[in-house]
Amino acid sequence: MEKLYGNAIVGQSGGPTTAINATLAGVIRGAIECDAIKTVYGAKNGIEGVLKKTLIDVSNMTEEDLKLLENTPAAALGSCRKKLPKDFEGENRKTFEDIIAVFKEFDIRYFFYIGGNDSMDTVAKLSKFTKSIGYDMRVIGVPKTIDNDLAGTDHTPGYGSAAKYIATTMQEILRDTAVYTVKAVTIVEIMGRDAGWLTAAAGLSSLYTNVEPDLVYLPEVPFDFDNFYADLEKAFEKHPNVVVAVSEGVRTADGTYVGEGTQSGATDAFGHKYLSGTGKALELAVKDKFGCKVRSIELNLPQRCASHLASKTDLTESVSIGRAAVKAAASGETGKMMIFVRGEGEAYEIGIDSADISGIANAVRSVPREYINERGNNVTKECLSYIAPLIIGEPELTFEGGLPKHFSFS
Amino acid sequence: MEKLYGNAIVGQSGGPTTAINATLAGVIRGAIECDAIKTVYGAKNGIEGVLKKTLIDVSNMTEEDLKLLENTPAAALGSCRKKLPKDFEGENRKTFEDIIAVFKEFDIRYFFYIGGNDSMDTVAKLSKFTKSIGYDMRVIGVPKTIDNDLAGTDHTPGYGSAAKYIATTMQEILRDTAVYTVKAVTIVEIMGRDAGWLTAAAGLSSLYTNVEPDLVYLPEVPFDFDNFYADLEKAFEKHPNVVVAVSEGVRTADGTYVGEGTQSGATDAFGHKYLSGTGKALELAVKDKFGCKVRSIELNLPQRCASHLASKTDLTESVSIGRAAVKAAASGETGKMMIFVRGEGEAYEIGIDSADISGIANAVRSVPREYINERGNNVTKECLSYIAPLIIGEPELTFEGGLPKHFSFS
Repeated sequence: MEKLYGNAIVGQSGGPTTAINATLAGVIRGAIECDAIKTVYGAKNGIEGVLKKTLIDVSNMTEEDLKLLENTPAAALGSCRKKLPKDFEGENRKTFEDIIAVFKEFDIRYFFYIGGNDSMDTVAKLSKFTKSIGYDMRVIGVPKTIDNDLAGTDHTPGYGSAAKYIATTMQEILRDTAVYTVKAVTIVEIMGRDAGWLTAAAGLSSLYTNVEPDLVYLPEVPFDFDNFYADLEKAFEKHPNVVVAVSEGVRTADGTYVGEGTQSGATDAFGHKYLSGTGKALELAVKDKFGCKVRSIELNLPQRCASHLASKTDLTESVSIGRAAVKAAASGETGKMMIFVRGEGEAYEIGIDSADISGIANAVRSVPREYINERGNNVTKECLSYIAPLIIGEPELTFEGGLPKHFSFS
Repeated sequence: MEKLYGNAIVGQSGGPTTAINATLAGVIRGAIECDAIKTVYGAKNGIEGVLKKTLIDVSNMTEEDLKLLENTPAAALGSCRKKLPKDFEGENRKTFEDIIAVFKEFDIRYFFYIGGNDSMDTVAKLSKFTKSIGYDMRVIGVPKTIDNDLAGTDHTPGYGSAAKYIATTMQEILRDTAVYTVKAVTIVEIMGRDAGWLTAAAGLSSLYTNVEPDLVYLPEVPFDFDNFYADLEKAFEKHPNVVVAVSEGVRTADGTYVGEGTQSGATDAFGHKYLSGTGKALELAVKDKFGCKVRSIELNLPQRCASHLASKTDLTESVSIGRAAVKAAASGETGKMMIFVRGEGEAYEIGIDSADISGIANAVRSVPREYINERGNNVTKECLSYIAPLIIGEPELTFEGGLPKHFSFS
């Protein structure tokens, strides 16, 4: 195939992760190495930045800056939640034409989009549109999501670091809550609206120690309050300090989110329905049922931005998949999402490939039922073995004044 | 002075910190090195373990185990909240006599208690009682609290690590929340019921970067909702993403805790008053006032147990103060609390001394008003300079399967 000479744009979209900047560094490295690409621009706030022409020339970033970027949380280019119109008809067509006008103005022949489901949808539409108008360019998606719920890939960049943060923090909370002898329940609420991959990581310490959460509830199994109370009773027989890991997305059999306030039913002084959160709802339920000390902990944003505790494996793979995206584009691919393929052997090995985006965008990959025990209150050893290699290794961070140093474009 | 030969007991009490095990390792090292002490026992769950005679011989711990112990969160010996009776009269006397009976049975001549205010109270009473009955022994308190609110010492062991966790996490949250362009407020609730030392650490990144929380509220200044709204208005003029750090203990001028539900006034379906927490209360207030996106984050237990992000300075000092406690006791001191004394020079230097416990127990050291700006919505540079050296340095951790390795006595 003939080489396609031109410039490139890379953008970031959707919720930040600890590894999305590592992938950005990978794309930039790949573009610098690629002789068909002259200038590589970073679009501020994803596709919004393309439309607004807020483009930063990142072709001359130093090795030192790229290293720092790899260890910086959040999206260094900024992010957006913009979805492209559903088709190319009438009014809708204008958005696509506006984007192409910018591409033509800057001689853009390569577009790399790092993001989740919505971003892959953007990649699918843009590649379809450019083909339909005969504008020769390569559009490639690079996945990221801490949720690990994208189809077609062994796992997603960003998941390993989030899993490492959750497993490490859970182990520290388990040590902390064990110091007293009074009966107490600690409920740890973990991100994951539809898929329980993050919550599944809470028990990783059980592979190496005798310390693990007593109960682990995922959204893949309907949540039952009576079973929950019975599970707690049983756990109290073992020790006075019971620790529960629960996905924010757990629902009862009728589909109601546990955190939606069905249990608490609270409203505030302004009349708002009180969306207390799943952990808080369970805290109130346990307090009412057992009358013991209860605490709920929402791990919250640090799950996706605690770069000080990133997984080296995750960061290395995230750089590699970004670089591979450029190679795939340079070799002629378009309308693809980059994916991880795990080797079949005993030892963990990961390969990088690309897959047609149409089969992937908007599909959700849940935790398979066989990765969850029969009772639905913990994950299996097989599940933990799948996650375990993804959290291995610690990045070499640069500190200033005791704080990790970050990279910033501004 | 003649040497006092005998055995020693060390115990841990009160809420865990990241550094309380480092102090324990320091006391154990000191006791092993001290030729007057034959056997050193660890009492499980503090003074409760003395009464129950659940004593562990820790005299033969290996260097490897002691190193691991230094990097283990929570209280490895377990903790308690037990307060000794207020005097030695009638019924009350029995508890003290029971303790002395155990001391005599095990030939205990040294008692080291690592803890906060309540534990220093125990040290004060025990040393007074042993003197009153003429039982020759040395009772020394070693402070610990993440709150940094003990009087008589420059700072407390455990504070530096908590401050490092808060400053690092805040910096990561600031990066994360800055990626979108929509108007949003993020409220970060930080521990500290009466003293704002922990919240003051939230802005440490401003010493090295242009990234810092917009507003910082401490319990030392009465919280005013109208001022808060005006502060937010002003912050929005600078950027769309405003981040607020707030102590859990902030109170309005009439002394009511902001988190007590005055604003939300909510009750749940069981009729419980809804103690939403300070962050949640402010989240609701901002949502009502500005109608923008608001998120509250409670940093919660990781503030006191995130040993993976401990301050090396804090851990080193915590070991030293434990060791120094044994030296002080061996040289004849009793009824004392060990303290840190900061050097007067430019460069940070810390010395260790002891102080009479009676003047210290139960006194609270707040953030001085001159460390807070006039408006009461941030701390001063002097305040940050006081905290800055305490978070320097990172411990060398041992990892297994990507998770920090911990020490356990069981």
